[in-house]
Amino acid sequence: MTINWDEVDGFARGLISNAGETIRKSFSSTLSIETKSNVNDLVTNMDKEIEQYFVKQVNDFDSSHKIMGEEGYGDSLTTLDGVVWIIDPIDGTMNFVHQQRNFAISVGVYHNGIGMLGYIYDVVADELYHAQKGKGAFLNQTQIPHLKPVNLTEAILALNATWVTKHDKVPYEVFGPLVHKVRGTRSYGSAALELAYVACGRLDGYLTMRLSPWDIAGGKVILEEVGGVVTNLKNGPHTLIEKDSLFAGNPSVHKEIYNDYLKGKL
Amino acid sequence: MTINWDEVDGFARGLISNAGETIRKSFSSTLSIETKSNVNDLVTNMDKEIEQYFVKQVNDFDSSHKIMGEEGYGDSLTTLDGVVWIIDPIDGTMNFVHQQRNFAISVGVYHNGIGMLGYIYDVVADELYHAQKGKGAFLNQTQIPHLKPVNLTEAILALNATWVTKHDKVPYEVFGPLVHKVRGTRSYGSAALELAYVACGRLDGYLTMRLSPWDIAGGKVILEEVGGVVTNLKNGPHTLIEKDSLFAGNPSVHKEIYNDYLKGKL
Repeated sequence: MTINWDEVDGFARGLISNAGETIRKSFSSTLSIETKSNVNDLVTNMDKEIEQYFVKQVNDFDSSHKIMGEEGYGDSLTTLDGVVWIIDPIDGTMNFVHQQRNFAISVGVYHNGIGMLGYIYDVVADELYHAQKGKGAFLNQTQIPHLKPVNLTEAILALNATWVTKHDKVPYEVFGPLVHKVRGTRSYGSAALELAYVACGRLDGYLTMRLSPWDIAGGKVILEEVGGVVTNLKNGPHTLIEKDSLFAGNPSVHKEIYNDYLKGKL
Repeated sequence: MTINWDEVDGFARGLISNAGETIRKSFSSTLSIETKSNVNDLVTNMDKEIEQYFVKQVNDFDSSHKIMGEEGYGDSLTTLDGVVWIIDPIDGTMNFVHQQRNFAISVGVYHNGIGMLGYIYDVVADELYHAQKGKGAFLNQTQIPHLKPVNLTEAILALNATWVTKHDKVPYEVFGPLVHKVRGTRSYGSAALELAYVACGRLDGYLTMRLSPWDIAGGKVILEEVGGVVTNLKNGPHTLIEKDSLFAGNPSVHKEIYNDYLKGKL
């Protein structure tokens, strides 16, 4: 059976828009400085509520579609056979709790392991990054241009300070020289948004030691549509079934970092 | 002569609003993904243009007011005697060039070394953080509440990865244990915005090794109005005349970090 991906795209965007509205309504305001005291409860309920909403809606849309979600209301999958929605209802939960901004809804729709649709919705900024395989990537209605080569000395990387400390997951000396080489580093605390920023050229790379499939499934589709490269830190594919490291970037930056800083060291 | 700080406040807010409009117009759009190629020229010209605008306007307003600015169009000051405007026309220049977001206009107005007025204007988000000494701090029209105690294990700090690498400015082992202690770290690349986020409780502390007076003059006034603490990393006052380290934070977090991680080590 041929899948009408435009139809799935329209359906997905409707769900994401509704979910974003639900989240915004949960704030007393988008600034919401006063609501901190009970946000731990809020975030728990909201994560679950949004994922359950997606599960129900997708099942009603096409019961053959499977769902992998952070909160576990979807299916337990060991392969990406068929159509699989990979969902993070709130990516950047710590930001959601602490900042009420800088979090996103992340959705990837995969077909036999191939990313067909990707969405990252920055709820508070009302910015939807989205892509359909082969049709380009967009920020709201504006097409995101293909990435152009960037010199590593002029690159900005998303790299959290924790990976530069002594850490059992990464040799002490791998990231330090890279941090000194590039123009600067940033850390926003939402893998989905960091991938979206790489797609837009606001960042030139993103390196992290441990992400789940739902953290990256949407962003991978978007980033690849603008020529970006998404691998793990060993330059192999992220499994999208289990946790793995992630190394996403502008292609020139990805190549130079892998060859000069990572190859054989991780 | 008594200074009417409400009048100075109104005047300053007018200047900042105009400057923000000038910057926004310099983008082809707020998303402005396409304008990257010539942004190095753009930022150079824009920094200078905005600072010259402030210098001229402030001189016209009251020629006894002095100005210290990043671009050097103001006065060469060795003291903060009298009324001194401390201005960064674009704080977060790298973000301005690379992202066309996450930068701010930062203005502090000091009287004999005491911060009387502080402004941080996130131009693209149209968010003005502002404070007048003794009258509270505001984000646009909303008053920012006083900071409440936060456990260090639940704190989010702004700390760039570069300070955790081997570095001549900081002993290798100072920040690593702190990074592991807190809930998370972030880095946004604009000192002014990072101070504003601490004031709003989106971050609980901000540590960096080297900042100029114009990076912090506005933020210090705002943060202190909500009970925040602004020192250098040795727990002394930032000179506001020369470059120095900076350690700003929620008071409980500032105290615990200084006593347990910094005292005697820097």
